[in-house]
Amino acid sequence: MPAQSLRMSRPGLILKLRCHDQPGIVAKIANYVAGHRGNLVEFNQFSDPLGGKFFARLEIETHDLDVDVQDFIDGFGTLGRSLHADWHFRRLPYRMRTAVLVTKTDHCLNEILWRTELGELPIEITSIIGNRDNCRPIAEHSNIPFHQIDMDGGQRGPGFVEIRRLIESQNVELIVLARFMQILPDDFCRDFGGRIINIHHSFLPAFIGANPYQQAYERGVKLIGATCHYVTADLDAGPIIEQDVERVQHFHAPTDLVRLGRNCERIAIAKGIRYHVHDRTIIDGHRAIVFPD
Amino acid sequence: MPAQSLRMSRPGLILKLRCHDQPGIVAKIANYVAGHRGNLVEFNQFSDPLGGKFFARLEIETHDLDVDVQDFIDGFGTLGRSLHADWHFRRLPYRMRTAVLVTKTDHCLNEILWRTELGELPIEITSIIGNRDNCRPIAEHSNIPFHQIDMDGGQRGPGFVEIRRLIESQNVELIVLARFMQILPDDFCRDFGGRIINIHHSFLPAFIGANPYQQAYERGVKLIGATCHYVTADLDAGPIIEQDVERVQHFHAPTDLVRLGRNCERIAIAKGIRYHVHDRTIIDGHRAIVFPD
Amino acid sequence: MPAQSLRMSRPGLILKLRCHDQPGIVAKIANYVAGHRGNLVEFNQFSDPLGGKFFARLEIETHDLDVDVQDFIDGFGTLGRSLHADWHFRRLPYRMRTAVLVTKTDHCLNEILWRTELGELPIEITSIIGNRDNCRPIAEHSNIPFHQIDMDGGQRGPGFVEIRRLIESQNVELIVLARFMQILPDDFCRDFGGRIINIHHSFLPAFIGANPYQQAYERGVKLIGATCHYVTADLDAGPIIEQDVERVQHFHAPTDLVRLGRNCERIAIAKGIRYHVHDRTIIDGHRAIVFPD
Amino acid sequence: MPAQSLRMSRPGLILKLRCHDQPGIVAKIANYVAGHRGNLVEFNQFSDPLGGKFFARLEIETHDLDVDVQDFIDGFGTLGRSLHADWHFRRLPYRMRTAVLVTKTDHCLNEILWRTELGELPIEITSIIGNRDNCRPIAEHSNIPFHQIDMDGGQRGPGFVEIRRLIESQNVELIVLARFMQILPDDFCRDFGGRIINIHHSFLPAFIGANPYQQAYERGVKLIGATCHYVTADLDAGPIIEQDVERVQHFHAPTDLVRLGRNCERIAIAKGIRYHVHDRTIIDGHRAIVFPD
Repeated sequence: MPAQSLRMSRPGLILKLRCHDQPGIVAKIANYVAGHRGNLVEFNQFSDPLGGKFFARLEIETHDLDVDVQDFIDGFGTLGRSLHADWHFRRLPYRMRTAVLVTKTDHCLNEILWRTELGELPIEITSIIGNRDNCRPIAEHSNIPFHQIDMDGGQRGPGFVEIRRLIESQNVELIVLARFMQILPDDFCRDFGGRIINIHHSFLPAFIGANPYQQAYERGVKLIGATCHYVTADLDAGPIIEQDVERVQHFHAPTDLVRLGRNCERIAIAKGIRYHVHDRTIIDGHRAIVFPD
Repeated sequence: MPAQSLRMSRPGLILKLRCHDQPGIVAKIANYVAGHRGNLVEFNQFSDPLGGKFFARLEIETHDLDVDVQDFIDGFGTLGRSLHADWHFRRLPYRMRTAVLVTKTDHCLNEILWRTELGELPIEITSIIGNRDNCRPIAEHSNIPFHQIDMDGGQRGPGFVEIRRLIESQNVELIVLARFMQILPDDFCRDFGGRIINIHHSFLPAFIGANPYQQAYERGVKLIGATCHYVTADLDAGPIIEQDVERVQHFHAPTDLVRLGRNCERIAIAKGIRYHVHDRTIIDGHRAIVFPD
Repeated sequence: MPAQSLRMSRPGLILKLRCHDQPGIVAKIANYVAGHRGNLVEFNQFSDPLGGKFFARLEIETHDLDVDVQDFIDGFGTLGRSLHADWHFRRLPYRMRTAVLVTKTDHCLNEILWRTELGELPIEITSIIGNRDNCRPIAEHSNIPFHQIDMDGGQRGPGFVEIRRLIESQNVELIVLARFMQILPDDFCRDFGGRIINIHHSFLPAFIGANPYQQAYERGVKLIGATCHYVTADLDAGPIIEQDVERVQHFHAPTDLVRLGRNCERIAIAKGIRYHVHDRTIIDGHRAIVFPD
Repeated sequence: MPAQSLRMSRPGLILKLRCHDQPGIVAKIANYVAGHRGNLVEFNQFSDPLGGKFFARLEIETHDLDVDVQDFIDGFGTLGRSLHADWHFRRLPYRMRTAVLVTKTDHCLNEILWRTELGELPIEITSIIGNRDNCRPIAEHSNIPFHQIDMDGGQRGPGFVEIRRLIESQNVELIVLARFMQILPDDFCRDFGGRIINIHHSFLPAFIGANPYQQAYERGVKLIGATCHYVTADLDAGPIIEQDVERVQHFHAPTDLVRLGRNCERIAIAKGIRYHVHDRTIIDGHRAIVFPD
């Protein structure tokens, strides 16, 4: 069921849809696609028996369509509205315009850059924004504009105004917090809802907030983890996209947890971004439906 | 997408289907179900871009069908034949008639019995067959007929004739080799193809054959495993349903690997049987499509 | 470094020791053992650079001792006191007298019984105590006395008095809460400190308290877990011995999490008990040093 | 028991030792250290009951030694010889001179470079050697000499002569095959025995040789893996240092396995190198004793 990397670079469409569950819904959607000679290369759906909702993701090859791609998209509206659905089409190939926010540590940023160059992440990084200057050399080596924005003390408010200005002027679609050590203002979270991805260096909901590795050490856990999640105004409580864990023992000091935890953080943030950019996630309240690849 | 245990005990149908991939196939199948007011509670499919095949599993609630269930099943034939498909319907609720073959060790047998009693495995164990007598007390405690069949030396041939007679007379649908330390005759494998599940105590294809934990120790692996797979005439080479691993270190002697490996064996065989009995597996040559729950 | 099961049944000693870290401590302890011709088959130690403490576990074969075993034990006192250490000797072979407390669900109890029979857990279960009657048949099948003690409403206080009476009259050394759905009184936790092991069906410190699988479902985690820990008066906050996790997806309903989580619970409680009974754990404040095997 | 990164950069010694197991050996070694006021910050040992051997790794702070460090090292000879031991001292801090051999893919090379810069791997990369030119830009960005050495067809023999010349002229202590797609000549393996580390992109001993991900796909495994091991003349059969696995499903094409497997390869090679460079490995025939941190 997965989109392979290559597939994302061929002409086609992804359709994401959410509505109340109802009889015949799969048939109706599949009929629309087949009726226009769309080739369904992947079709994931989930009928939630508890919430009464229906979620679907379709990946459609469009070279044999009997109408223009835009007409195919527009024409779906009649069905979509009759289902009272939320839906979204994305044309392939595409690269999602992405801003990466950082502070000092660079392992998540490095991971994102490396996977982008490798073709694993179809994103275009429009800018790297730091409230510290540490990551500037990495940005410059990758020829990506770096913006240092002071956010200490009274600069926090104006700082976020500046970030918002940058992001809006660059038509950014995705904001990645790659170990960005600042709490976002509520209105920022709200306005960019579902478009901000964070990596938290613990196995949420354990160890919310500051210094999770120190907390993990003090609690004496036998597994540490990392969580990639959507950001909401509720700190570290947004819908989880991906989590990863690693086994630890009593002899691991907090500095060891930091070292081993980086492995989890890098894997989890890379998978989380990939799922989002490939439209493999659908937010449903506090949870995220994820169709992994 | 999973069938919950409860769901399996409600009236309904499971449809498994395999055919060459072709345009509109999802729509055609979904239309048939919706056209008769079947309620699709789960629909998994896989369009294999490499093999050009299409695989699907549907779970259908039937209380609102506009025809008899048998008519619904029969009526699918027209579509199934036009797709040149292999397909299979199963009526729910059901319990699969199962024979368990054992030798001396009982941990896998115990696991199967325990999960059956708990309701995790919708099977009816018609008999437990051992080439040794060790597991008789467990069978008797569970009120399941135990048959000891000698298979040493020249008794091997007659032994398998007797097993076959038992299995056929009891209308057994599934044969589980729960650490059964005998190699099945080729014709036996062939005649019960796709209906024999084995647990091998290694991470296949590593350590095929005898004493895999000893082999693993000598090779110095850092992870041991267990593999639940369909049995074919090719030793330990049948389609894999499920695998599980556990981390080990240099200080683990072969007896430790046996101890730790039991954890993997029990989990893997239990999941493998469940997937098979819930029709979540489709064999495709040397591989198995598995829609896990 | 591990004790193999067989080894635990041979004559010998386990020495556990904790003190402030200090120069030459390993040499002093090893000298004492070697000086009396003890054969050190396993020697684990941990010098904690953060806490300034030293922890050790020694497994000693005693057949070549130049003194009586009791004299060897007594003679260590001079060294132990000079190190200002806490220490403890245990003679092998031994079986730890254990009471298991249960409510309704029996999977952890079953696991403990099965592993005990198999020889994995060197314990003698003196009694199974339930605040419900559900587990009585299992206890009776294993020929272990079952005591139902009502703990509802006003019966809670008298119930724990009765449990304490039973445990003390049977010289119980270890109390295992095998999904016992009652919170222990503070004085009970204190009086049996370091001798009560619980399994909590979440990846602590996430989802403390009631219905952790429901909490996990609502939070949308991608991994569920189980935690085996010592019980203190602080609910679900005692030193962690072992944790295990399993990957889940959005389609897993709470009932699926219960089903999959049982796998984690059974493995974690079995390992936790084994480590405790083999003296592989040393409690250090909120943490547990664990030398796994 | 682990060396933390910081610790490796402080003055001190690591002692690795292997000999036949014998009474009092721990006491003798610990006495030598304590007798000269060495501070034992970590002491791992393993008495192998099956092979009758004893293995140890000691990490010793030397600031309080009552003799020169060199005298301490030399003085150990008397004890070492009396134990008929192989032993090795390493002075801290140190950085191991390392050559990295590559072909086309760069993810393992990148990982090594990144972790070296971060301080996780105390190595000094003297040169990067490729039989293709693909990794030259990465080498140049890191200011490390890159040598392209043609090894196709008849150039293979002269190529390895050239590699050997480079390595010897640079006093290389460790050779890392970071996805180097050439089989080393037997004499090369022999001459640099225990000093060549390879990453194989499968869970060895499964899928030895070429195209392991394709092999894994065709076999239909449910977990893929990577293995970091010492190189011997026996292809992919040298002592294993570290292995890592990731779960896959039927829908993962070989290209997906390549993508997901990179995660395992990068983690396993990084851990394997770290264990080697921190002297946490002791080769014992076909196996490696590893004291992880």
